[in-house]
Amino acid sequence: MGNTIGKYFTVTSFGESHGRLIGVVVDGCPPGLALDKSDIQIELDRRKSGSPGSTDRREQDCAEILSGIYERHTTGSPITMVVWNQDIDSNSYGEKLTTPRPGHADFAAYVKYGGFSDHRGGGRFSGRITAGFVMAGAVAKKLLALSGMEVIAHTIELGGIKAKPASPETIRLARENELQCADTDATPGMLEVIRQAREANDSLGGIIEAIALGVPAGLGEPVFDNLDGDLARALLAIPAVKAVEFGSGFEAARLKGSQNNDPFLPGNEDAVCASNNAGGITGGISNGMPLVIRVAVKPTPSIGIAQNSINLDTFRPEILKIRGRHDTCIVPRAVVAVESMIAITLADFAIQARIIPGVIR
Amino acid sequence: MGNTIGKYFTVTSFGESHGRLIGVVVDGCPPGLALDKSDIQIELDRRKSGSPGSTDRREQDCAEILSGIYERHTTGSPITMVVWNQDIDSNSYGEKLTTPRPGHADFAAYVKYGGFSDHRGGGRFSGRITAGFVMAGAVAKKLLALSGMEVIAHTIELGGIKAKPASPETIRLARENELQCADTDATPGMLEVIRQAREANDSLGGIIEAIALGVPAGLGEPVFDNLDGDLARALLAIPAVKAVEFGSGFEAARLKGSQNNDPFLPGNEDAVCASNNAGGITGGISNGMPLVIRVAVKPTPSIGIAQNSINLDTFRPEILKIRGRHDTCIVPRAVVAVESMIAITLADFAIQARIIPGVIR
Amino acid sequence: MGNTIGKYFTVTSFGESHGRLIGVVVDGCPPGLALDKSDIQIELDRRKSGSPGSTDRREQDCAEILSGIYERHTTGSPITMVVWNQDIDSNSYGEKLTTPRPGHADFAAYVKYGGFSDHRGGGRFSGRITAGFVMAGAVAKKLLALSGMEVIAHTIELGGIKAKPASPETIRLARENELQCADTDATPGMLEVIRQAREANDSLGGIIEAIALGVPAGLGEPVFDNLDGDLARALLAIPAVKAVEFGSGFEAARLKGSQNNDPFLPGNEDAVCASNNAGGITGGISNGMPLVIRVAVKPTPSIGIAQNSINLDTFRPEILKIRGRHDTCIVPRAVVAVESMIAITLADFAIQARIIPGVIR
Amino acid sequence: MGNTIGKYFTVTSFGESHGRLIGVVVDGCPPGLALDKSDIQIELDRRKSGSPGSTDRREQDCAEILSGIYERHTTGSPITMVVWNQDIDSNSYGEKLTTPRPGHADFAAYVKYGGFSDHRGGGRFSGRITAGFVMAGAVAKKLLALSGMEVIAHTIELGGIKAKPASPETIRLARENELQCADTDATPGMLEVIRQAREANDSLGGIIEAIALGVPAGLGEPVFDNLDGDLARALLAIPAVKAVEFGSGFEAARLKGSQNNDPFLPGNEDAVCASNNAGGITGGISNGMPLVIRVAVKPTPSIGIAQNSINLDTFRPEILKIRGRHDTCIVPRAVVAVESMIAITLADFAIQARIIPGVIR
Repeated sequence: MGNTIGKYFTVTSFGESHGRLIGVVVDGCPPGLALDKSDIQIELDRRKSGSPGSTDRREQDCAEILSGIYERHTTGSPITMVVWNQDIDSNSYGEKLTTPRPGHADFAAYVKYGGFSDHRGGGRFSGRITAGFVMAGAVAKKLLALSGMEVIAHTIELGGIKAKPASPETIRLARENELQCADTDATPGMLEVIRQAREANDSLGGIIEAIALGVPAGLGEPVFDNLDGDLARALLAIPAVKAVEFGSGFEAARLKGSQNNDPFLPGNEDAVCASNNAGGITGGISNGMPLVIRVAVKPTPSIGIAQNSINLDTFRPEILKIRGRHDTCIVPRAVVAVESMIAITLADFAIQARIIPGVIR
Repeated sequence: MGNTIGKYFTVTSFGESHGRLIGVVVDGCPPGLALDKSDIQIELDRRKSGSPGSTDRREQDCAEILSGIYERHTTGSPITMVVWNQDIDSNSYGEKLTTPRPGHADFAAYVKYGGFSDHRGGGRFSGRITAGFVMAGAVAKKLLALSGMEVIAHTIELGGIKAKPASPETIRLARENELQCADTDATPGMLEVIRQAREANDSLGGIIEAIALGVPAGLGEPVFDNLDGDLARALLAIPAVKAVEFGSGFEAARLKGSQNNDPFLPGNEDAVCASNNAGGITGGISNGMPLVIRVAVKPTPSIGIAQNSINLDTFRPEILKIRGRHDTCIVPRAVVAVESMIAITLADFAIQARIIPGVIR
Repeated sequence: MGNTIGKYFTVTSFGESHGRLIGVVVDGCPPGLALDKSDIQIELDRRKSGSPGSTDRREQDCAEILSGIYERHTTGSPITMVVWNQDIDSNSYGEKLTTPRPGHADFAAYVKYGGFSDHRGGGRFSGRITAGFVMAGAVAKKLLALSGMEVIAHTIELGGIKAKPASPETIRLARENELQCADTDATPGMLEVIRQAREANDSLGGIIEAIALGVPAGLGEPVFDNLDGDLARALLAIPAVKAVEFGSGFEAARLKGSQNNDPFLPGNEDAVCASNNAGGITGGISNGMPLVIRVAVKPTPSIGIAQNSINLDTFRPEILKIRGRHDTCIVPRAVVAVESMIAITLADFAIQARIIPGVIR
Repeated sequence: MGNTIGKYFTVTSFGESHGRLIGVVVDGCPPGLALDKSDIQIELDRRKSGSPGSTDRREQDCAEILSGIYERHTTGSPITMVVWNQDIDSNSYGEKLTTPRPGHADFAAYVKYGGFSDHRGGGRFSGRITAGFVMAGAVAKKLLALSGMEVIAHTIELGGIKAKPASPETIRLARENELQCADTDATPGMLEVIRQAREANDSLGGIIEAIALGVPAGLGEPVFDNLDGDLARALLAIPAVKAVEFGSGFEAARLKGSQNNDPFLPGNEDAVCASNNAGGITGGISNGMPLVIRVAVKPTPSIGIAQNSINLDTFRPEILKIRGRHDTCIVPRAVVAVESMIAITLADFAIQARIIPGVIR
């Protein structure tokens, strides 16, 4: 269970890191959207390995659409998209899991699935499953664009190096940056800490900020299907995300009401705020301001340094030295996954609210 | 929509701040649980006004159970619980909303509901709806206790004043503290900033930390129904919560993998970790360590200071001075709401996993 | 679990036959619908006891709206509606269930709920819970009327006496008939078999037909959230319903394709069919023709005749003679429940498809 | 939307009749179930064309498992199963739908999807999608067998020819019969009416009866997630099913309570009934007796005889003569689909109730 998200625009994820493929079924996409493989591929390429700090596993990740498209348009039927796994090397994994990797889901999954889960390459818990998120996100982004919505994200902190604040225009350029960072002055420092961590067989984390532009006021449901609640849940599905904040977030705890409240400015049939500490969401509902969301990405748990673990048969201590191919820092590759999960969630609400029409013409 | 949460243990919320009542329907509670009004009341009393910084509205909040109980035990049928609103003063609210309060849901709700929502006292967006969360949480806590699970929370920061770290034993004592703070040394400073903010007609926020003890490994579903994802969503349903983090949370972004990974220690048919940076959750699944969760609570948006707003009929600027009765700082009263939403979420997963039995004998 | 139905327009049922009340929470009703107690009462009165063949229990069933209404309009928040139980006589029920009544849910519930369910008057399994369905249905009907949709039902068979086919105009008049039957020629015979069954301490069943008019083409989702599938499920929630058919239904099994297919007639920007064997639904989607649905209602299982049962403690045979107050035939009272469940289901689909607008002005 | 069914054991369907493939994602299957391709193939072969009255389209329908299996056992992750379409002939379909086929979903889908749906071979509305149901059903059946549950179905009426009642032992043999009929005396007559209908370019329907054995008492949720309600909904997802009844079904409407009630017989820690008019379900919950379900299958709407239709561009009359390859009677091929949808539904409830364990060892 737990492999489907969304209520109106649903995404069902399947596949394993070292299995035959990674895929998604997207249900609820309105008919009439022009969509072909290249729309998917362009997004998928952004999460490909190859950037500094990424794994040596080199997957082509060619998107293939297996259903839901007719005459180059969506039909309203489920869209199935897959990438076939090709560069698999399961040599560093035994047939059965014996020594759980610290920081990984290995142990929790071992207990939950009674030892039957496919642990090779992390199986269902691998960052590789986000290839599916990105394919679904590509569809969501095309839908959102129809109504003038856009989701952009960038690396704002990596291994402790902070980027300076950026405007939407600058954030859009981050996708050209090898670390998906809008601050080109901060990039060299980030690259250097990645180099050092790689050399030390260690790993790094960071913070990703996302902005959603053009989101009309009124999306989100009180009390429980909040826009922020659903966004947080979607983002925490990305392996390695450990925290989510909206607007001033944790900083809000230190502000006074008079500082944190966003005063209204007179607009044209619309309210605009003088500040955006709410991050575009009040009472769980979008208020017309840009959404501002930040997520913390923990350092990749797979490191080459020897670690204390246990043997699952004997429950006695064991020293684990992880082999296999791993990312030193997944933050840059996670940026598009963050955008995708936000886009998927917004599409869900926008379809429900009919901001996105039932049939696209 | 959006007023039901949970999949196996579901909570449906209803009622408005200035309407007749606040209530919940709890569905999926196994039959056979001994439950009476006092189990509910004891929790409800913890969120009552009266503590420093709380509103002058004095509600008795007497829990009433309307269905689902027979011979003092749950029957397996929906449990309906309500508190009747009694100390209502709607004088400071016009019949229709004209000037949205900054930081509140007023404007977003106005757009979403076309001006039909009951805005008096915040209506459905009032912190008062958490009375329902707490009643449902009381049931969840009793269920969890059957399997040795316990959720405890405390104020760890208020108006910028930080409490020192606390052990579970100390956190349990926080419920006796007037600010629900386990650090009695920090309390006077917190009380002082509340006094100052109250005097200045301003408001304060803070941070609440929750610990869930006795949670067995294996709760939570990859990929999308993550334990952390569902917890975050449940917590963001509490008005004023703007951020959620697990374990080392945002701090994880600055740690190296070798620092952030939690090494396993040999246990007795169980794995224990030497640290708990994961906050008890890896890959979206509980790993047997205590859950550690922190939420940021923004300063109460209702302040007595004049603020810039707009008139919704003319869309021209208007100065708003909020009257009515409001909390200077809701952090202490939100502590039990935080515990409740965590307990509700854990009960949902524990019932599904049959950690909590189908019939309680 | 299982006490909530619907996806966009959801109904959560609570309460027991001999508990304090019967109620529903309706979530997802668009804001702006004029609604007051009398809209609910008029429907509720149609299922009241008092008609021939109905129980001696005389409940006033005064609808009370507890939330979701402000200034006589729906607000978009959950609408809670209840009737308080008043004429309760639990004398004929022991504290614990010992002898399950044949044809009733007693035994199945006993196993499922481990003996904890409230068995008095059937508890959650009583036909009395349909008072909640009817209150929710009243809201749904008002919504449907906004878009020109109407659901009407009538008794077409009772105790083996068949009514003759009726036009929509005639069916509308059935609500004035004491047996909710459109065929006044058939009524005396039906009344006579009821009288005989009552005298013999026995009971009768029948068939109810419902028509939904004004349903536009395009409602319903393939493959699994079919319009017919969801209607059948909603109707089977009515205690005593044992079968559901659409259009020619079971008779279709005996027709040839050339007889059962409904040929299209040229219309005005619309297709109309020359016949309606499909009952208005093809491929799980409405096709623009009236929906035609029939349900079989089994004879009331509570009869005064002695029956073979068992003792649940000893599992030895026991002769059961049911006392208490019961309907000889619930068919006439079930007619409005049938209409209600259909209206609830149609409202769900119509809201999703935005046939019913998001805000009603 | 609408392509996922189930709550604990969910089936997501995808693919089109003339697209690349037909498939399903099964989520919620407990880990540890031994499963390979042959388990799926054996069921799939039962719905293959080739039997009397079936289409000339000859698909190999080789099951392929793409995810969720490791070391020949289920892992607890989503199981993706597909059959690739191979014998496609779209010549008889234009690029766009112009003339809707009477009795088909063509028109309703055209309205719903604004003309974007893939109409070739019926697209998503083709009986071919039941290949996915059958693959998912094969998994469900293996799960049910672990707890001694079994679902068997047979043709009890075809083209007006009735089979005589059959015992479970005899029904099990029906899978060897070319018409899936347990009554070998009735088979020749059925074959003859098929031959006649084929010659006349017409089509036939029929009735399928299913029995579920070994279903323990207590499955199903009141009030809305009834076992019968969910079964009916699942069965109506099979194209051509127009009616569902349980136990005595429509006949119950003509019985007296004293005839229709099933008296209890003393059992061994279990109640057994002397009759089974309830079809194993009372109050929406299984009562320990075998489930008895009958569905009406309408005659295949695709017939070679000229029919009245309309042109969707001009809305003027048009005579339609359907070419392409079609079944004269799909009843025999639908038998395994009926079993599958029942098995899927029972697995859903049995997993929830932990009749099927969380991990299979």
